[in-house]
Amino acid sequence: MNRPLPRAGALEGGVHRFPVRVYYEDTDAAGLVYYANHFKYAERARTEMLRAVGFEQEQMRQETGFVFVVRHCSADYRVPARLDDDLVVITRLTGIGGAYLDLAQEIARGGEILVALAFRIAAVGRSGRPQRLPPALRAALDEFPAAHEPRKSSQHQLSGAKLSHAR
Amino acid sequence: MNRPLPRAGALEGGVHRFPVRVYYEDTDAAGLVYYANHFKYAERARTEMLRAVGFEQEQMRQETGFVFVVRHCSADYRVPARLDDDLVVITRLTGIGGAYLDLAQEIARGGEILVALAFRIAAVGRSGRPQRLPPALRAALDEFPAAHEPRKSSQHQLSGAKLSHAR
Amino acid sequence: MNRPLPRAGALEGGVHRFPVRVYYEDTDAAGLVYYANHFKYAERARTEMLRAVGFEQEQMRQETGFVFVVRHCSADYRVPARLDDDLVVITRLTGIGGAYLDLAQEIARGGEILVALAFRIAAVGRSGRPQRLPPALRAALDEFPAAHEPRKSSQHQLSGAKLSHAR
Amino acid sequence: MNRPLPRAGALEGGVHRFPVRVYYEDTDAAGLVYYANHFKYAERARTEMLRAVGFEQEQMRQETGFVFVVRHCSADYRVPARLDDDLVVITRLTGIGGAYLDLAQEIARGGEILVALAFRIAAVGRSGRPQRLPPALRAALDEFPAAHEPRKSSQHQLSGAKLSHAR
Repeated sequence: MNRPLPRAGALEGGVHRFPVRVYYEDTDAAGLVYYANHFKYAERARTEMLRAVGFEQEQMRQETGFVFVVRHCSADYRVPARLDDDLVVITRLTGIGGAYLDLAQEIARGGEILVALAFRIAAVGRSGRPQRLPPALRAALDEFPAAHEPRKSSQHQLSGAKLSHAR
Repeated sequence: MNRPLPRAGALEGGVHRFPVRVYYEDTDAAGLVYYANHFKYAERARTEMLRAVGFEQEQMRQETGFVFVVRHCSADYRVPARLDDDLVVITRLTGIGGAYLDLAQEIARGGEILVALAFRIAAVGRSGRPQRLPPALRAALDEFPAAHEPRKSSQHQLSGAKLSHAR
Repeated sequence: MNRPLPRAGALEGGVHRFPVRVYYEDTDAAGLVYYANHFKYAERARTEMLRAVGFEQEQMRQETGFVFVVRHCSADYRVPARLDDDLVVITRLTGIGGAYLDLAQEIARGGEILVALAFRIAAVGRSGRPQRLPPALRAALDEFPAAHEPRKSSQHQLSGAKLSHAR
Repeated sequence: MNRPLPRAGALEGGVHRFPVRVYYEDTDAAGLVYYANHFKYAERARTEMLRAVGFEQEQMRQETGFVFVVRHCSADYRVPARLDDDLVVITRLTGIGGAYLDLAQEIARGGEILVALAFRIAAVGRSGRPQRLPPALRAALDEFPAAHEPRKSSQHQLSGAKLSHAR
């Protein structure tokens, strides 16, 4: 993993790695990356992971009204990120439901995990009502290692993800 | 001017005054308000000035597709704003065209002007094409002092606004 | 509760209520408030709740290097917020540790809860090392109802807060 | 120019080109990139241009207290940018003063210029007082084509930059 990551990130063995540089806009007066901005980094990475499996969100939205929304998210902040840092967002699929995806994400610098995040993102239609995942996306994601794990109840899966982050 | 401003600001004699508190989200690692965030403050104040004359932007957009977009903006940064500062955004109309408004805005702390900004905002329809200002809005704004000034060419007016900011 | 809230919010019976108006800067192309921006609203409210009990964060930071950082946060998104919405952020203290506070926050519109959030914020010194809460802050917060509840382990408390949000 | 740009951009013949992808965080309810966010894109590009000539801002700040601040900026918005757009920020030095740089920047999609911006950024020390440009930076920038143009008064130069944007 010593080649530099392409700017859209790279997907290998079901793990997506996405590079992020910290600019002034991301930091706050405490000299650190403002806590909510890690959620922006995570969303950029999720977008690129979906693009990497052939899913163009904006095209889908315009053609069908389909969008992903965040239903739940959590973050554990362990080590602060700072101006000029060169970070990597690591994204793993941890579960697939009929109308949602569970994802675990980590924001790392060098080999160190700074922030660990967990997400449930849900598919909704133009009306805002839940919508089943498009079969093509489902098929693409079924290749991922996590999709082969025994399906647990979603709440367990999220808690599991979060608890493992807590230490 | 010793009463505290209401949170939506106050319009008096054609001058709109809007209060802004600086939070962590607004600052950067240099300990100051990040320069682009002053444009957010200015937009909040323009929204409230329009609301004060009876113009609800989101309702207009949903009913008619009409939105205001920024065509030109400039800012002179004189004195930095800092975390916890209690600021006021002062908004004045400096010109009305058929399909645009020119505005001068200042971000002040106490009596001191920290940033001086100038804007041209243009009315566009759903298609993105220029659209005449709604007659009701025009009528409301015609009450403003600046609307009675001789109409100059827009570029002059903008430059004029900017130059007067530069000293 | 029919009086309009002052712009810094109001603290009554240990519950802080803080008003937020949604502007363009807060929304995204899906027409909703961007998910990470609810964390900004929550942080503004926490700042004002601390100020309401006499704790000026920036002054503390300059004088002693003491800052609060977010250690953990989570959010359940139930109902989307939209442009021009007039929201209230409701903040409750759910636990006090030696060097941290646990808080539950809700973002509501009218009587409806749109987003439910939980936070652990930790006190750190200039070095980034954990620091005990200042006695004056502790004393002020001990007046809060939640501070009288039996102290549970922090992880339980957070999970409890989060689980109650999840349905 | 058919190779993809590296994520830190590329400096060739005194022109810096920096790639930017538009994510949800950048857009607003009108479906476009929020106007102030173009200033974030521009700042990322300026940071990378300075890094490309060997100037690490954060390192300078920590070692000497030296930072660049924006003194003046302006933007002409011609064509909206949208979600998922792949943009390029083009940065050119238009003037060097004892304690400031003038820059013209353009945000482009394909061959089309969407936004044209002009900046004066000033060097200040820890005290906030103006500070001469470090000789090493000056030497690096003297290689740029614009640095060889006859030095005009700064106000002219800025206005010139802006006027050329206006048509």
